[in-house]
Formats: sequence, C-alpha cells, structure tokens
Amino acid sequence: MNRTSIDEKTTGRVEAFSDGVFAIAITLLILELKVPELNLSEVAHPDALLWEKLRELGPHYLAFLLSFVSILVMWVNHHRIFTIVRKSDDAFLFWNGLVLLCVTVVPFPTELLAHYMTGPGSKVAAAVYSGVALLIALAYTALWQHATRGGRLLTPGYREQEVAELSQQYRHGPLAYLVALGLAFVSSAASIGLCLLLVVVFAFRGLTSGR
Amino acid sequence: MNRTSIDEKTTGRVEAFSDGVFAIAITLLILELKVPELNLSEVAHPDALLWEKLRELGPHYLAFLLSFVSILVMWVNHHRIFTIVRKSDDAFLFWNGLVLLCVTVVPFPTELLAHYMTGPGSKVAAAVYSGVALLIALAYTALWQHATRGGRLLTPGYREQEVAELSQQYRHGPLAYLVALGLAFVSSAASIGLCLLLVVVFAFRGLTSGR
Amino acid sequence: MNRTSIDEKTTGRVEAFSDGVFAIAITLLILELKVPELNLSEVAHPDALLWEKLRELGPHYLAFLLSFVSILVMWVNHHRIFTIVRKSDDAFLFWNGLVLLCVTVVPFPTELLAHYMTGPGSKVAAAVYSGVALLIALAYTALWQHATRGGRLLTPGYREQEVAELSQQYRHGPLAYLVALGLAFVSSAASIGLCLLLVVVFAFRGLTSGR
Amino acid sequence: MNRTSIDEKTTGRVEAFSDGVFAIAITLLILELKVPELNLSEVAHPDALLWEKLRELGPHYLAFLLSFVSILVMWVNHHRIFTIVRKSDDAFLFWNGLVLLCVTVVPFPTELLAHYMTGPGSKVAAAVYSGVALLIALAYTALWQHATRGGRLLTPGYREQEVAELSQQYRHGPLAYLVALGLAFVSSAASIGLCLLLVVVFAFRGLTSGR
Repeated sequence: MNRTSIDEKTTGRVEAFSDGVFAIAITLLILELKVPELNLSEVAHPDALLWEKLRELGPHYLAFLLSFVSILVMWVNHHRIFTIVRKSDDAFLFWNGLVLLCVTVVPFPTELLAHYMTGPGSKVAAAVYSGVALLIALAYTALWQHATRGGRLLTPGYREQEVAELSQQYRHGPLAYLVALGLAFVSSAASIGLCLLLVVVFAFRGLTSGR
Repeated sequence: MNRTSIDEKTTGRVEAFSDGVFAIAITLLILELKVPELNLSEVAHPDALLWEKLRELGPHYLAFLLSFVSILVMWVNHHRIFTIVRKSDDAFLFWNGLVLLCVTVVPFPTELLAHYMTGPGSKVAAAVYSGVALLIALAYTALWQHATRGGRLLTPGYREQEVAELSQQYRHGPLAYLVALGLAFVSSAASIGLCLLLVVVFAFRGLTSGR
Repeated sequence: MNRTSIDEKTTGRVEAFSDGVFAIAITLLILELKVPELNLSEVAHPDALLWEKLRELGPHYLAFLLSFVSILVMWVNHHRIFTIVRKSDDAFLFWNGLVLLCVTVVPFPTELLAHYMTGPGSKVAAAVYSGVALLIALAYTALWQHATRGGRLLTPGYREQEVAELSQQYRHGPLAYLVALGLAFVSSAASIGLCLLLVVVFAFRGLTSGR
Repeated sequence: MNRTSIDEKTTGRVEAFSDGVFAIAITLLILELKVPELNLSEVAHPDALLWEKLRELGPHYLAFLLSFVSILVMWVNHHRIFTIVRKSDDAFLFWNGLVLLCVTVVPFPTELLAHYMTGPGSKVAAAVYSGVALLIALAYTALWQHATRGGRLLTPGYREQEVAELSQQYRHGPLAYLVALGLAFVSSAASIGLCLLLVVVFAFRGLTSGR
C-alpha cells in the first residue's frame, strides 16, 4: 500500500467522521421542540387549547428550520470542499475540527433564539446566534484557505474556476455574518433575517456555482 | 478521476449522510419513553403499582412502535430509490434534504400522539401526526419524480417495470395520507389506524414489488 | 453492474445502517446517568457529601455497564453474522429490523433497572429487563435461522463448522433468557446475575468459537 | 474472497462503528449546555440580565470545550492506530470496546466538572474527571500494546520509528494522568490545568510525530 492510498483513506475517514457529526447535530435539533404538557381533562375546548399551545411554539419551529437548513447547507459545502480536497495534513485536520466544533454547538444558540426571539432579550439571542454563525464562517474560510494556498491539498486536475469562485465565496461569508452580528444590536429581526438570507444564498451558490 | 466516478462518490456520501440521519432519528425515539419515577418505599404493593404504571404507558409504546416502523420503512424505500438512482444533481439534493427534514421531525408528532392519543386533544394529535406523514409522502414523491423524469438520474440499464411500479406507489402515497389527515378531524382512531395500515402496505410494497 | 454486486451493496448499506443504530444506542446510554444537582455552598463537608451522592448512583453505573457490554456483544455477534451472510432478502431485512428495534429499546429497561434494582419494584424491573433480553435473543435466532436455512444467504465457501456452532448458540440463547425471565419473579438478583453471566458467555463465544 | 480481505473488512467495520461512537459522543456534549430559562417580561434591563446569565455558564463552556477537544484528540489517535494496525483479533476487539466505553462515559464527568468546577466540590469533580481520563489513557495503552507486541497486528511494512514513538507516548500517558488525579486532591485547578495541557500535548504529538 503506497503513500497516496493511505492519504486517501485518511481523507475518507475524516469525511465519514465529519458526516457523522453533521448527521447527529442536525437530528438532535428536534429534541429542543418540547411537546406542551397539558391536563386537558377539565378544559372546555381541549382541541382549541392544544392548537393554541402548538401555535405558540411558532418561534421554536422557525429556529428549528433555520438551524436545520443551516447545518444542511454547511454539510453540502463541506461535502463540496472534500470533492476538491483529497489530501489531508495536520493543520487541515485542525481546521476541520474547528468546523465540527462550531457545528455541534448550533443547538445551543438555536434554543436561545427559540426562547427569546419574540420578546425581551431578542437582541442578545440574535447576537449569540449570528456570532456563532460568524465563527462557523471563519472556520470554513480558514479550512478552505489552508487547503488551497499554493494548491497543496487539491486533487490534481481540479478546475481552477471552481476553486476561484469558492475562494471568493469564503472571503465574503465572514464579512456578511459580521454585518449580521452588528445588526443584532440594532434590530434582532434584521439580524436573523440576514442570517436566513445568507443561508439561502449559500445554499444556491453551494449548489450551482462552479459549473 | 473522471466525472462519472465523482458523481458516484457524491451519491455515496449522500447515502451515508442520509443513513446517519435515519439511524439517529430512529434511535432517538426511545428517549421519549420516560421511566415512571415512583417512591415505592411506603407503598403496600410496590410491584403491582409499578406494573400498573408501566401499563399506563401503553399509548407511548404504541406511538414508539408506529414511528419506529415508519422510519424503518422510509429507510427501506430510501435505500430502494438509491439502488435505482445513481446520479445526483442540485434539485435531487434539495428534495433529499426535505425528506431528511421530515424524518428528523418525526419524534415531535410521535410524542404528541403518545401524550394525547387516548383523551381530549386526540384529534389534534392525530391531525399533526398524519399531517407530518403527508409531508413525508409528498417529499418522497417529489424526490422520486425529479429523479425519474426523463430517466435523467437513473442507472443505465434500470428495470422499467420496477420504475413504473414505484412511480405508481409514489403517486398514491400522498393521496392516502391526505385521507388520513381528513379522517383525523372525524375520528383520531380511524386516522391513526389508516397511518398504521399504510405503513404495513408500504413495508410490503417496498420489500416485494418490482420482482 | 450485475446482480451480485447490487446484492453486496445492499448488504453493505444494511450493515452501515445497523452499525449506526448500534453506535447511537450504545452512546445514548450515558444520558440516563444524571449528575447530582446539589447546592453545596452551605454544607459543612461538601466534598464528602458529593462523594456520597456519587456513590449512591451505584445501581446506575451497574445498569449502564451491563447494557453497554450487552449492546457491544450484540454488535460483535451481528458483525459476525454479516461476515457469513452476504446476501439479503425481504425477510432478512424484516428480522434485522426487529433486531434493531430491540437494540434501540435497551435504554428504557436499563433506566428501569437503575431506578428500581435495589428496592421495592426490583422484581418488575428484572422481569422487564430479562424480558427485553429474551426478545432480543429471539430476534437474533430468527435472523440467523432465516439466513442459514438451506444455506440460502450464506457466502459461498462458508465454514460449515462455524455455522453449526452459531446455530447451536442461537438455539440455546432464548432458552437461557427464558430462565432469566422466570427467575425474575423469584429473585431479581438471580435474574440480573444470570443476564450478566450470559453476556459474558456470549462475549466469549462470539469472540472465540468457530476457529 | 480470501482470508486477508475478510480481515480488512473486519477492521473496516470496527473503524466505522468506533467512528460512529466518537461522532455521537462528541456531538452529545452540547446537550449539557442548557439555555437559561428566564421570564424577562417584567425585568428592567432584560438584555443585561440575559448576558449576565449567559456569562455565568462560563464553567459549562470550558468543560464543553475541554471534553470536545479531548474526544477529538482521542479520535485522531484512534484513527492513527488504525492506519498502522490492519488486522484484528479477539483481544483487540475487547480493548477497543474498553476504549469506546470510556469515550461514551465522557459526558458524565464533563457535566460534573461544569457543575462543581468553581465552588465547593471542585476537588471531587476534578478527581472524577482526571480519573476517567486516566482510565481512557490506560485503555489506549492496552489497545496499543496488544496490537504491537511482536508486531502481530501491524501492517506489513509499517514504519518502525513511528511505532516506537507511539509506544513511548502510550507508556507516558497513564503516568501523566495519574499525576493529574493525584493533584485533584490538592488543587482542582492544577489537576484540570494539567488535563488541558496533556490534551494539547497529545494533539500535537498525535498530529506531528512519526514523520
């Protein structure tokens, strides 16, 4: 077994481990959605009350959706990086570990957002949420820049245009999330709205650029 | 490495990620089954009381079983789609993401059903449960129709009869769950009974059709 | 791609999915171990009190260990079956699903045991625990018998002696757990002790037989 | 299919299962971070109060980070062992099972540390944390020594210097954690500080030695 195949196996196991972390983090999000525990036996209109209580969970559904789609988009982009990067080194493992750290953290700001999104404390919740999003964007940028600097970890024969486009994306991401973080101190709705918009943008770019 | 093998690797990682989500969602279901916490030290017949309390969890066992089998059947059908579909594109990833979103949501309506199945609020619980089931059916139908339209993502040499049978199945599924949703407003038992029946039907079709 | 390779891929994905379920179930067990929440600021000997409270979790550690080792041994045996079985059919998938159902259930009887092992209610806890173990043993036996009857799903060139030994093991397993279930109504300690003994026995047989 | 390929498949599935356990354990850590549940509607400065409450979670963030990085480093080292070890036998599976047991346990001492790190009870928390770390170090040492004694499970053509360096590392690890355990009874800060230092050291050695 020569050196190349060991390297590829390494990347393979890093991918598998990362996929596991993404899959678990995305599935754990639902655990924050707690079923309302009501004693309906002496209520005049139990069905109406239960609907009402389920409707009141609205911010929780929204936070769940936002985080689910965010993690999915992160996974798609992670996946995309690993179709271009086929070798691994120490620093790459380190930056990938930082990405995974940020991904596993997501359920915490999500729950914070779900609790405080619609009342007092919403600015703090939006700041923490967009702050974590900023950290994630920085970790991805660091991972990507390390892998591509001088082309050192790229698959031979990679498409230069695709790499250039991704480099641009990873340069702009942190700036955009920095704006979202700043907005949180002015308007939590604007900050969360921008986060939502960015997820949609990255979803489309992650899927369609580089053609 | 040519374009085809990159595509196949892509499908492989989508499968692996999806399998992870299915496996976690199906295993998290047990967390809703809470052990009754009793102080038995001053009870006359502690064993009888504990049996009684365990029996009272009946609806929870039923909801657990229904959801476990549902997710397992979804996995079998997902698996089946991926033996026929070998290529992936943007929209396919999107629809697959929607399927996964629905799968990870399952613990929530399951717990709702377990809590309210047998008393007031049962119609709401049945409506939410069958409504989520309808969404899942729609997501599968969209995934399948996108993959098969014009045969674009199919493995060369796929069996036409199998594809035709699956297309029929995925056309009828949403209609059947729409009926279950409608029934929920009349009789929660009928709605849940139909969901149960459909799971059994899809299990058998998922396993045996296309021979 | 011919039929054989599709079959092998099928088995591969069943293995991967099953591994996921085993890995998650075995890792979720720790969630039942709750850290004692004490307010130590006004306690004379806080360290001594915390040690004491940690010691009182004794039955929880024991139940955790028993279930961890049980699931690990189940995984080793599942793994072993899949080195001999390389083909898959509908009923095999069904029985494998039943095995996975039983595996995911394990955290529930484990927590029941941890709560009631040492006081009143211990017979109920032991009966439920050994009852679930009996169901697991029956599911394994059904899986194995289906796969080996007439050698239909076996890898060509399998070792006959190994299959014969495993068949004997899977015949005796359910009987032994039936005894454990019966013992639960007489002495919970004897029932749990037998479960523990059986795990050790299966661990050794799973590892060393068939050489 | 010859004997070698069966062995390699065996190692492959052990790796996959182990990766699953590592990925789940590392992702479950976030569940201990509970969002503060405040009723902010009648508070004069809700944002300030929420920041304050989030700051008070400081020890929880620290414990989370320490355990996340520890499990990641364990995974990197596990991964490294499996690039050198390509064969598997009964005792190897047993020692690997012990490693996994220790890994899944990590959330418990982590939560203990988060709760009691900064007040009375901190020595107990530090002792349990470093004690579990010692057990993990011992399990790794046993796994490694079993695999390398007489070179029995090593890949033909392994690099002797790398093996020698790892052997030295796995000899020193348990001693270092034994010191951390002893320190816990004197100063919890010193004990946790040493654990942190060791994680950093093992991270660097795990990544850079053997070149």
